[in-house]
Amino acid sequence: MRAEIVTIGTELLLGEIVDTNAAFIAGRLADLGVDLFYKTTVGDNELRITQELKRAWKRSDVIITTGGLGPTQDDLTREAIAGLLGEELVLHRESEAGMRAFFARLQREMTENNLRQAMFPRSAEPLKNPEGTAPGLMVRKDGRLLFALPGVPIEMERMFLHEVTPILRSAAGLKPLFSRNLRMVGIGESMMAQTVADLIDNGRSPTVAPYAKRGETRLRLTVRAADQAEANSLMEGTESEIRRRLGRYIFGTDAETLEGVAGHLLKQRGLTLATAESSTGGLIGHRLTGVPGSSDYYLGGIIAYDNRVKRDQLGVSDVTLRTCGAVSEETAREMAGGVRLKLGADLGLATTGIAGPGGGSADKPVGLIYLALASGAGITVKRQIYAWDRSGNKEMSAQAGLALLWEWLRDERAQGS
Amino acid sequence: MRAEIVTIGTELLLGEIVDTNAAFIAGRLADLGVDLFYKTTVGDNELRITQELKRAWKRSDVIITTGGLGPTQDDLTREAIAGLLGEELVLHRESEAGMRAFFARLQREMTENNLRQAMFPRSAEPLKNPEGTAPGLMVRKDGRLLFALPGVPIEMERMFLHEVTPILRSAAGLKPLFSRNLRMVGIGESMMAQTVADLIDNGRSPTVAPYAKRGETRLRLTVRAADQAEANSLMEGTESEIRRRLGRYIFGTDAETLEGVAGHLLKQRGLTLATAESSTGGLIGHRLTGVPGSSDYYLGGIIAYDNRVKRDQLGVSDVTLRTCGAVSEETAREMAGGVRLKLGADLGLATTGIAGPGGGSADKPVGLIYLALASGAGITVKRQIYAWDRSGNKEMSAQAGLALLWEWLRDERAQGS
Repeated sequence: MRAEIVTIGTELLLGEIVDTNAAFIAGRLADLGVDLFYKTTVGDNELRITQELKRAWKRSDVIITTGGLGPTQDDLTREAIAGLLGEELVLHRESEAGMRAFFARLQREMTENNLRQAMFPRSAEPLKNPEGTAPGLMVRKDGRLLFALPGVPIEMERMFLHEVTPILRSAAGLKPLFSRNLRMVGIGESMMAQTVADLIDNGRSPTVAPYAKRGETRLRLTVRAADQAEANSLMEGTESEIRRRLGRYIFGTDAETLEGVAGHLLKQRGLTLATAESSTGGLIGHRLTGVPGSSDYYLGGIIAYDNRVKRDQLGVSDVTLRTCGAVSEETAREMAGGVRLKLGADLGLATTGIAGPGGGSADKPVGLIYLALASGAGITVKRQIYAWDRSGNKEMSAQAGLALLWEWLRDERAQGS
Repeated sequence: MRAEIVTIGTELLLGEIVDTNAAFIAGRLADLGVDLFYKTTVGDNELRITQELKRAWKRSDVIITTGGLGPTQDDLTREAIAGLLGEELVLHRESEAGMRAFFARLQREMTENNLRQAMFPRSAEPLKNPEGTAPGLMVRKDGRLLFALPGVPIEMERMFLHEVTPILRSAAGLKPLFSRNLRMVGIGESMMAQTVADLIDNGRSPTVAPYAKRGETRLRLTVRAADQAEANSLMEGTESEIRRRLGRYIFGTDAETLEGVAGHLLKQRGLTLATAESSTGGLIGHRLTGVPGSSDYYLGGIIAYDNRVKRDQLGVSDVTLRTCGAVSEETAREMAGGVRLKLGADLGLATTGIAGPGGGSADKPVGLIYLALASGAGITVKRQIYAWDRSGNKEMSAQAGLALLWEWLRDERAQGS
């Protein structure tokens, strides 16, 4: 089965956005075992879109388009597909009703041009869009499959995973690829890769590949199997061997996040958490509350950006702020201890640092950050220096704060206390 | 002059990397005023690369390829171009010498397959690569220009800027494109597009195009001009007309963010801000502190996730929590007023809502959010319902909170107070 992607949008040809949609679809097609031979981008021009679709229709079995399904005059994908098929656009009653219900639920007015989104070529079927108003569409004709997906990444991704994948899987009839990511903190990519060098690129299945992203390292295991159970048993031996060597650093697999795993451990052990954030400005709270059910263990926190807030709300002493400074081990320590007491939590997690671009000195450079975790048993402090921009330094600091929390929970569990 | 990009590499079709090269080149072509009509990606397969190049050669004046110039057997761009031109590959003596000098300087051994990189079709000229070993190549034939650039982004970018740009600039003799984005909150995409329907796609310059992303809508004006000053004067009339109709909703242009613009207004007027976040969990604080210099006006906040924190730290009354509930207009009001007093700020911004997926009821559905802004003059409350997932609901809520802040600053300014 030969697939082809056509991404549609003048903004892609103006270089205003990077085509992450094409990369997402390409990756999922590879997982499904569907060969992708071409990826084309064309602007919001009906004639050129139709031409590209005709060419794709000739040489490929599966065509996936993204973009051009919105409500405006610029959105021409439906018209171009009608042109490809030599069909008219007709109003799809069910989609219209769904759209009206969506607007009613949100108590918003629906304008007439929204109805454009319910117009389909006669032989097309709509694809559900749980994330927005524009349905996608599918055409099955002459042994070809064409899927038109929205351009908004979250809508496209959901529709691809829930609507397109099952259809492609049954059409392809191939054993699909299964992957498992072992996610780590506290170890760098090269050290991790060295520790399992004999398992990487050794020509055997499962394949093992190292990855790194900001503040996290991963090993990805991949096998071809009939189903998840077979995949599990094929991966078992290699995964055990990796865990034997690197298990200490592995906080979770696949979609498990550091905040999710730490949250689960907190809940399991009936512990509550409070945060005191200076340089991370609320990002740790945001990540913790991204986990459904986090209200079971996360009480809340103080964003102590101004020094008066550190003093008045967290009880950091004037002497500490004056002699050690706001970015210091001592301040981090008092912030963590302070928020723990103030909010009556079992654990207090604090950050203070210099995100940049300004505010650094020879002594305390931009990127310097202190992290502290306070428990009934004492306070642990960690010092790091990052060399990213403001946003990267904040991200890395939040990640390091959550890693400190997870490592504390891991080690406490190991001691059986 | 019609341009076309062909990016070459199987890794792009496997979705392992995102094609940032194509976006970079597209952006620079737009700046140069060269129209880009197509972007195609093809794998490391000589036949398919040659086919795509032949098609591009037919329909475009300028063809730019990236990738496939390395030393391995997978690198087939030189062969494909030779196939396109019907020429043989010959060793380019000067490039060979340059390559030998490069390796000597780094005191590394040069392997024989590196010499492949000095093989060019007879009518091609090499393009210098100051960042690596692989020279690019240029072909000028039959009124066409073809540039083959390396796939490594830093090498490609340098070569594009230093070697390709001057050639294109003189060949195009065209004025470059200039764009301006007018960024709005408080109005939906369809309503915005309808309000200026006569300016969109009317065949006149500047062109006007609508865009939407979560919680924001945009109009983009584009003109061809000799320089920024000429572009400004060509856009002036249309921009004024848009501002006359939609000015109330426009918070900024281009790279200006809602938190940046609101922060600037706060600073300008010597006002300080504190936040009290429940359902957004720190995301508003995170966005506010993403702006360099935000410590001038943002004091900090309370993440009041647990009801006890709402009561003990923000002074929300037990009666309110019991009778109206944590997600209610009254609680939002008391949170905003409470944090303003507690942190001694001029303004208090609060959020409380149900991010989901659990916690909803018929009365108070998932996605319901209350936003409140407290000032010395009183408290404004806004109610919204969103239908995204947890993360989308949090994002939209934070955006709505910042919009409420900006709208207050806008309206207060309008009153001249």
